[in-house]
Amino acid sequence: MLIGLLGGGQLGRMLALAGSTLGLRFRALDHNAEAPVRTVAELITAEFDDLNALERFAEGLDVASFEFENVPAESVRFLNERVPVFPPPEALEWGQDRLLEKSFFQRLGIQTARFSAVRSIQDLERSAGEIGLPAVLKTRRLGYDGRGQFILRTEEDISTAWNSIGSPLLILESFVPFERELSILAVRGRKGDTAFYPVVENRHEAGILRLSLAPAPGLSAALQASAEDYAIRVLEALDYVGLLAIEFFLYEGQLYANEFAPRVHNSGHWTIEGAETSQFENHLRAILGLPLGSTAALGHSAMINLIGTLPDPIAVLEMKDTHLHLYDKAPRPGRKLGHITIRRPDPESREIAVVQIHNLLRG
Amino acid sequence: MLIGLLGGGQLGRMLALAGSTLGLRFRALDHNAEAPVRTVAELITAEFDDLNALERFAEGLDVASFEFENVPAESVRFLNERVPVFPPPEALEWGQDRLLEKSFFQRLGIQTARFSAVRSIQDLERSAGEIGLPAVLKTRRLGYDGRGQFILRTEEDISTAWNSIGSPLLILESFVPFERELSILAVRGRKGDTAFYPVVENRHEAGILRLSLAPAPGLSAALQASAEDYAIRVLEALDYVGLLAIEFFLYEGQLYANEFAPRVHNSGHWTIEGAETSQFENHLRAILGLPLGSTAALGHSAMINLIGTLPDPIAVLEMKDTHLHLYDKAPRPGRKLGHITIRRPDPESREIAVVQIHNLLRG
Repeated sequence: MLIGLLGGGQLGRMLALAGSTLGLRFRALDHNAEAPVRTVAELITAEFDDLNALERFAEGLDVASFEFENVPAESVRFLNERVPVFPPPEALEWGQDRLLEKSFFQRLGIQTARFSAVRSIQDLERSAGEIGLPAVLKTRRLGYDGRGQFILRTEEDISTAWNSIGSPLLILESFVPFERELSILAVRGRKGDTAFYPVVENRHEAGILRLSLAPAPGLSAALQASAEDYAIRVLEALDYVGLLAIEFFLYEGQLYANEFAPRVHNSGHWTIEGAETSQFENHLRAILGLPLGSTAALGHSAMINLIGTLPDPIAVLEMKDTHLHLYDKAPRPGRKLGHITIRRPDPESREIAVVQIHNLLRG
Repeated sequence: MLIGLLGGGQLGRMLALAGSTLGLRFRALDHNAEAPVRTVAELITAEFDDLNALERFAEGLDVASFEFENVPAESVRFLNERVPVFPPPEALEWGQDRLLEKSFFQRLGIQTARFSAVRSIQDLERSAGEIGLPAVLKTRRLGYDGRGQFILRTEEDISTAWNSIGSPLLILESFVPFERELSILAVRGRKGDTAFYPVVENRHEAGILRLSLAPAPGLSAALQASAEDYAIRVLEALDYVGLLAIEFFLYEGQLYANEFAPRVHNSGHWTIEGAETSQFENHLRAILGLPLGSTAALGHSAMINLIGTLPDPIAVLEMKDTHLHLYDKAPRPGRKLGHITIRRPDPESREIAVVQIHNLLRG
């Protein structure tokens, strides 16, 4: 079986590694000739909107998927006329625009921060009055890892924000003074079967995920159930196939959906060692119509992203029961270069290991 | 880092998959253009004794290893003049000849079956008298998966055996009426650090490994210690670097060393899911001079080889907590095409799962 992947970053690389174990072969399309997937898949180097390249890419594929959120929806539709594409292109379209995404959540009865479309500075001023400050002004499209965001704390920030990222395609969201950031990974097969990983706690710095704790420490069964209920609504509304991630804020005991990603997700990397079946294998099982694998956690895991620079691998590997993942990318500030996963029998020993790794990374 | 592998079969494929996770790149040399490693490594298609190909293969490698036992020792020596090769070429040479191997065990004080070199039918008659029957006549070189072996039960079998595999390069070994077949996987780093996996029980049919149980059920600490003691002797005598497997017969509470393999080993495939660090990752850590990873078992695992034909993957993946590994090889009788690993909390539930998988494979 030959699987096509739009995008050849670390997510594609980890999909290809998981799928190679199952005897699958991969072809990726990416504009970067040095894309991390290149050593474990056939790589076609081209832009996503290059229709000739898409034709070549599609030839002989059994199924296609995407590992990058900002693939043009038209390219995915073009591909979908030639080969089955999962998740469905609609999921990509709803997820690519923060306003559509929030409206979609709202329509499904999933709680979100208050939000308003912003097309002009007048819109912004009015919305800021209605929603109240602090609030976050965001570009509707192409924002990731905290890019294209501006926090408004006082009325003076309105013009600064507008001058910084002003455009007709913005959204203003009330700032949720969250206690924790959480995410759930859900997977749905071609027959509508579903499975859910335990809810994960995520810690970001400068908008980039730094740490995931899985399962989230001390999370109630009620919150797990609430996250699964929200995930089911999204999965069914989109007739979704594949892995889906939804990120939440936890505030006063309630989940506020922030965004969803119609793909494997950074907050699921822990599943490679920390769950019975990894998110990567389960995504592939789903899109191939194979039975889904168990999402049960094996102990208590933590995933620490390696961003910008790499630590001495010897120091990392000297730590007991530490799993180092490197994506074969050139170091660059803010770039995700790899991650470390640890798996421990209880949350307390996990906490100790996380501190040890943070100390190691700092010095 | 670029790692060279002599041989591109499933062992090379699993080494490349494990190493890709660590950000390593691979180049393999194999005579088969369809070698299983081809989708996850650069493949040079050539015979092992093609010196021009070996030159090209060696260029730019950081370190080289082999995943196939019957690589010509001269090729490994040629390569070793250009790039560090681990395990040491001597290990390959001792392991390639059953007579040298048994003599080597004997010299290290490691118990083996009685054995004698056989160069003629007269040698065979005399040795059969000395060693007693039943005994096993084997070719000294190039035997694997039970090929090149003949069991002598009565004196009449002597001439039949000679007519079947007679040559000046044979060994006669007394038949050990073993209760169990066991193996130990040991790994030694470049600084002489060592680690040992729990002893595994192996079941063969027609000379081919069918099932490994890890840890071996009900194995005493004394036998584990004895296997580790034997492994240390081999590792140190060869100044070994990398993963080593030793296969034993268990008879009347004693270990009889049968053979060693200076490479990752089929009886270690369970370590991918069943141990904290897989044999593949630990082999790579060893040859790269990185710290060795924990060899602790995670529960009780079983590895079932898929030989000759493949089961319906849906039926396999429907079984709870079952890990399917396929090597992307064309089915052929007697060919190892993949394996299944299951990991259970206790030996009893492992036993039940093994029966279920056997029933599934039977049809």
